[in-house]
Amino acid sequence: MIKSAIVLVRTLGTSKPSLILSQTRCASQALPQLSATKYNVKRKEFGVVQSEDVNYFKSILSEEQVLTEESDVLPFNIDWIKNCRGQSKVVLKPKSTQQVSQILAYCNERRLAVCPQGGNTGLVGGSVPVFDEIVVSLGSMNKIISLDETSGALVCEAGCILETLDNYVRDRNLIMPLDLGAKGSCHIGGNVSTNAGGLRLLRYGNLHGSVMGLEAVKADGTIVDCLRTLKKDNTGYHLKHLFIGSEGTLGLVTKVAVHCPVLPKAQTLGFFGVKDFESVLSLYRSAKASLGEILSAFEMADNYSIQSTSKNLNLPNPIADFPFYVLVETHGSDETHDSEKLNRFLEREMGSGLILDGTVASEPAKIQTIWNLRESIAGSGLLEGYVYKYDVSIPVANYYDLVPKLRERMKSVTTKVYGYGHIGDGNIHINITVPEYSKQATDLLEPYIFEEVAKLKGSISAEHGIGFRKPQFVHYSKDPAALDLMRDLKRLMDPNGILNPYKVLPDP
Amino acid sequence: MIKSAIVLVRTLGTSKPSLILSQTRCASQALPQLSATKYNVKRKEFGVVQSEDVNYFKSILSEEQVLTEESDVLPFNIDWIKNCRGQSKVVLKPKSTQQVSQILAYCNERRLAVCPQGGNTGLVGGSVPVFDEIVVSLGSMNKIISLDETSGALVCEAGCILETLDNYVRDRNLIMPLDLGAKGSCHIGGNVSTNAGGLRLLRYGNLHGSVMGLEAVKADGTIVDCLRTLKKDNTGYHLKHLFIGSEGTLGLVTKVAVHCPVLPKAQTLGFFGVKDFESVLSLYRSAKASLGEILSAFEMADNYSIQSTSKNLNLPNPIADFPFYVLVETHGSDETHDSEKLNRFLEREMGSGLILDGTVASEPAKIQTIWNLRESIAGSGLLEGYVYKYDVSIPVANYYDLVPKLRERMKSVTTKVYGYGHIGDGNIHINITVPEYSKQATDLLEPYIFEEVAKLKGSISAEHGIGFRKPQFVHYSKDPAALDLMRDLKRLMDPNGILNPYKVLPDP
Repeated sequence: MIKSAIVLVRTLGTSKPSLILSQTRCASQALPQLSATKYNVKRKEFGVVQSEDVNYFKSILSEEQVLTEESDVLPFNIDWIKNCRGQSKVVLKPKSTQQVSQILAYCNERRLAVCPQGGNTGLVGGSVPVFDEIVVSLGSMNKIISLDETSGALVCEAGCILETLDNYVRDRNLIMPLDLGAKGSCHIGGNVSTNAGGLRLLRYGNLHGSVMGLEAVKADGTIVDCLRTLKKDNTGYHLKHLFIGSEGTLGLVTKVAVHCPVLPKAQTLGFFGVKDFESVLSLYRSAKASLGEILSAFEMADNYSIQSTSKNLNLPNPIADFPFYVLVETHGSDETHDSEKLNRFLEREMGSGLILDGTVASEPAKIQTIWNLRESIAGSGLLEGYVYKYDVSIPVANYYDLVPKLRERMKSVTTKVYGYGHIGDGNIHINITVPEYSKQATDLLEPYIFEEVAKLKGSISAEHGIGFRKPQFVHYSKDPAALDLMRDLKRLMDPNGILNPYKVLPDP
Repeated sequence: MIKSAIVLVRTLGTSKPSLILSQTRCASQALPQLSATKYNVKRKEFGVVQSEDVNYFKSILSEEQVLTEESDVLPFNIDWIKNCRGQSKVVLKPKSTQQVSQILAYCNERRLAVCPQGGNTGLVGGSVPVFDEIVVSLGSMNKIISLDETSGALVCEAGCILETLDNYVRDRNLIMPLDLGAKGSCHIGGNVSTNAGGLRLLRYGNLHGSVMGLEAVKADGTIVDCLRTLKKDNTGYHLKHLFIGSEGTLGLVTKVAVHCPVLPKAQTLGFFGVKDFESVLSLYRSAKASLGEILSAFEMADNYSIQSTSKNLNLPNPIADFPFYVLVETHGSDETHDSEKLNRFLEREMGSGLILDGTVASEPAKIQTIWNLRESIAGSGLLEGYVYKYDVSIPVANYYDLVPKLRERMKSVTTKVYGYGHIGDGNIHINITVPEYSKQATDLLEPYIFEEVAKLKGSISAEHGIGFRKPQFVHYSKDPAALDLMRDLKRLMDPNGILNPYKVLPDP
């Protein structure tokens, strides 16, 4: 659960520097409480960094790659949403896989805990230390190694910024297969390590499908080279997937090979009003059938989401008041064809009565206006009070079930329970706005909402990961045998537990 | 390397019953030699099945689920291409995950080796026993559990036949995300366990991307339930990938949830002649850019591949004699739009000179004729002698490099060295036809070809897996650290090594 204003921008998958900036200003006024105190965590029995350790690091790295000044280290101790604060004394900035390997081999030998850090844009405290873990920042490993423009295979170091990569490949008529709000600062290595989802997963698939290969360093310093640029490679176990989404607890991703799809030449967008959630689902089925291969996003928002956002932020809603809204986007190679398909879809479904009203846009400014309304929902609630935010996956048939249930359950506290999100990915954001944070509201919501998600075979973390904040909830989405296997893998890959401790795995 | 006639049909990814039938007849005349003798393998120290073991199996399964008659067991001992023969005495046919779990728990306790078997359509001997491993056939676990027509999430048991599933979802306007020649008999559980590739991976991606969840049973009988139908689920390690492509050596896949894309309404096909391999690559780049989202296959074949096939099998070649041929297929939701795109592409690239001649088809019969020519290449060589066949992945920039190199290297033996395959997936089939099998030819080819593939960072097995036949070659595609990690995983998941022994992992 995320309770901070700053979260919103990232969650939404937009990159609006002004909004990010203003919210960063609001939240940066005071140092957050230490995570260890705030969440009552006990330090595990790791070694403590000594001056001879620092000397060793300085001997294998250069002076400027070893930060020990408190003011230099501080930014690496605090997460982006100012929710977590660690107590690290040392930040290492390796410039090569070999250096990462030397660092880990040494730390493993000395039982020094390590916190790998990419762009530090995570929302669950996974990328900042909790105690005095040594921060290994991958930011200096930011070289693009190669791009095969024919196959779309991009090979780069883990510290490359997603937007830098996207710009690079766009200049060559390709796009990165993922797009998220944090793209201006998140690292591709962090994306891979957290299996970042993002806006257009519906179209371009997930990272398990688009990462062609990677190089990672195990806790003991062993370099595992699976850096291939092949789509078909059935030569033994598919090891790269161990490092995708394990949030730096099984190894540090140092290089990535990713498949870049072709840059779409045309983008069109439709925004429609419908009468109930059943109609949203029918429309999704219809859009899949008629737009098929060009469908790049299918988003929904309920009435409260859109109306309150339009009102609170004074954003124009291009259509009238409807129980539910649907945003359909296409990415294609021919604007005439795409508009024709989308208009035909609109006409047919207005005729069928599924769409009550709608608008279609292909001009970038109008597209941006509509996306802006949809993307501002999450931020809007903050103007009305305290917002409980849940990012969950639920099989689409039951996608919206929880919202009316919660509305009923929460009625003594609030009427502001609303849902919106990526139907195409089964990923719904459920927000509950209350006048102010209260234990009564929290107790009504938790663990009820996790239990309900578990009953529906959903996921309590759709795209944000587990990190430091959610290990105690993992059991709602993983059965005991799966949790045991996770622990077995951790013991196998990192027997001393030095990699990103206090994260992902719940205490036994 | 595959040296049998029957391989061809499967490799090609077609389903032509008549061809399959005639070739099966040819090859089924004699029992193949025992694998253990043929490949000089030593039995590992497993228990030997006793009558009390059989009695136990009969107590937990019904009589007809336990086969012990030699004639009943024989078909499970021999692989589809009659290359490998095991010596199993017992076949078990569980009907539920619970029964699989009971079987494995017992076998693990008694150190009885197990060979999991799906549709037995593999090409590398992975699905048949080598010695007296107990065959666990998943064929009786063939229920479709659910289909969410909105999200496309299909959930079924591992023993479902791919074609049955494809027909089932096609009736509901969806398709399976993979298509291969063996679809009439291969099982989805086997597809997942071997990470089957197939014809249209270019368009619909690989199984790591499209398998949403699975249920598997570990060697000790523990059931691991990762059977979710979610596209976004970041709750800890992504365990399902351990079972995708590990060929039944880390666990038995018992249920699968797979994402089915929308059935395309239109199919069009272009067949073009070009002057050199550079032009093939340029054309691929151009097709990706202009056909983008509707491109479903991009195949190439060199002159010898097409000319000899046309001649040997008396198949019409719709265009004249060219150094290279390209087959481009589209899957889309609008036939008019798709034909327009493909024709425009053809006109432009004929104008540019990349395409020397070409034809475009949207009638099913004409499409089939052209696919038939392409798909018959592999079979055609057999009419000219003995064929060495290699199925490798190579980064596209170097895709064709090996063919002229091998032509030069093999010139004292043969001039018939030809290449064809799926450019879009970087997967080339290299065939070398010689008058008859000879040690001289073999020694010229191996390990040379594997070394060259390794130098190009390619894969020595693109889509067929390692199985029983290739463990000794895995090191050409996996570095020592990766091999060590593979062995570590095997020890972790199956400490007694009972699951599919003699397969995948090379001896240390």
